[in-house]
Amino acid sequence: MEFSSKLLEKAVNEISQLPGIGKRTALRLVLHLLKQPKEQTVFLSQALLKMREEIKFCSNCHNLSDVTICEICSNKNRDHKIICVVEDVRDVMAIENTGQYRGVYHVLGGKISPIDGVGPSQLNINSLVSKVKSGAVSEVVFALSSTMEGDTTNFYIYKQIQESNIITSTIARGISVGDELEYADEVTLGRSILHRIPFENEFKNN
Amino acid sequence: MEFSSKLLEKAVNEISQLPGIGKRTALRLVLHLLKQPKEQTVFLSQALLKMREEIKFCSNCHNLSDVTICEICSNKNRDHKIICVVEDVRDVMAIENTGQYRGVYHVLGGKISPIDGVGPSQLNINSLVSKVKSGAVSEVVFALSSTMEGDTTNFYIYKQIQESNIITSTIARGISVGDELEYADEVTLGRSILHRIPFENEFKNN
Repeated sequence: MEFSSKLLEKAVNEISQLPGIGKRTALRLVLHLLKQPKEQTVFLSQALLKMREEIKFCSNCHNLSDVTICEICSNKNRDHKIICVVEDVRDVMAIENTGQYRGVYHVLGGKISPIDGVGPSQLNINSLVSKVKSGAVSEVVFALSSTMEGDTTNFYIYKQIQESNIITSTIARGISVGDELEYADEVTLGRSILHRIPFENEFKNN
Repeated sequence: MEFSSKLLEKAVNEISQLPGIGKRTALRLVLHLLKQPKEQTVFLSQALLKMREEIKFCSNCHNLSDVTICEICSNKNRDHKIICVVEDVRDVMAIENTGQYRGVYHVLGGKISPIDGVGPSQLNINSLVSKVKSGAVSEVVFALSSTMEGDTTNFYIYKQIQESNIITSTIARGISVGDELEYADEVTLGRSILHRIPFENEFKNN
């Protein structure tokens, strides 16, 4: 791509380093910014810069936060004895949106994945294990993706905390609400039959 | 969407104002930036800000440029008597990439489109008309999109310059190179038959 302006080229190159954004999309975005009032670009740049420089990771659960201890960890109304183990910040947001969970979280920052070069030492696993071993925890809920990497990570952590005599649970796998049975894969359907729950429980939660 | 950090929320809100980027994609991009070295965010913000503040529109052809007169307009080797009328900067880049055009450009900055509230006064039409009337131009090549708005804009400009006794041309409409005839729409196929060219010309241009 030949650019008529070095400034334009540089902006396009920087934007196209973001995942899923190619040169053409980047050019479209830059030309859009040029058509908008200058303030929009100023606000965008400042928000990104300020976010990158000032955002913190909660020292307790490793969730993104503006302060050293995040809102969830400093909330007295939540059950600090139950820890939900998640992969990243988006999962915390997703679970919070359900309004069904009143415990706290522990964000691993990824999954064990040898192919991507991610080992246990790069994840926030040690701090979780010491939290559990300190005796302040009664239950650990695994809420990782249902993939090979997720299962590996679950199992790795489980092996390290299994002697601590606490409850370990994992989120239920089964048919999504609204799904038709005939289109469900057999593993999911099999698990949903194996782990069937008393019919009355379904009412209680609605 | 509930955010654990105001800084994160602000960055996501700013990014999601860009066209085609929703809140989820914006969050993915922000989390990506957080995983990368701080420099990437700094470079991105600076490039956007610098581009928005310092980029100029060529005072002659309205193309984006780092200087007052763009490289194409100040290039002595180009034929300044032929002006190619295009909608925006991307079209200049696309035509330049073909390497088939040695004249100069005139960027309108859009098309006449009453539905979007774009009238002739918002486009760089007057400067084109005065350029033509000054007598320094021998041919105007219309290279706008083959849509209702493109045709309207072509015709509007044509009406204003038709008395200037210059050549006006439009880029050829026809079957794309590599296309199969049976899938071509009838208007395009009809035009390609109507405006057929001597067979030898096809050789010359290859």
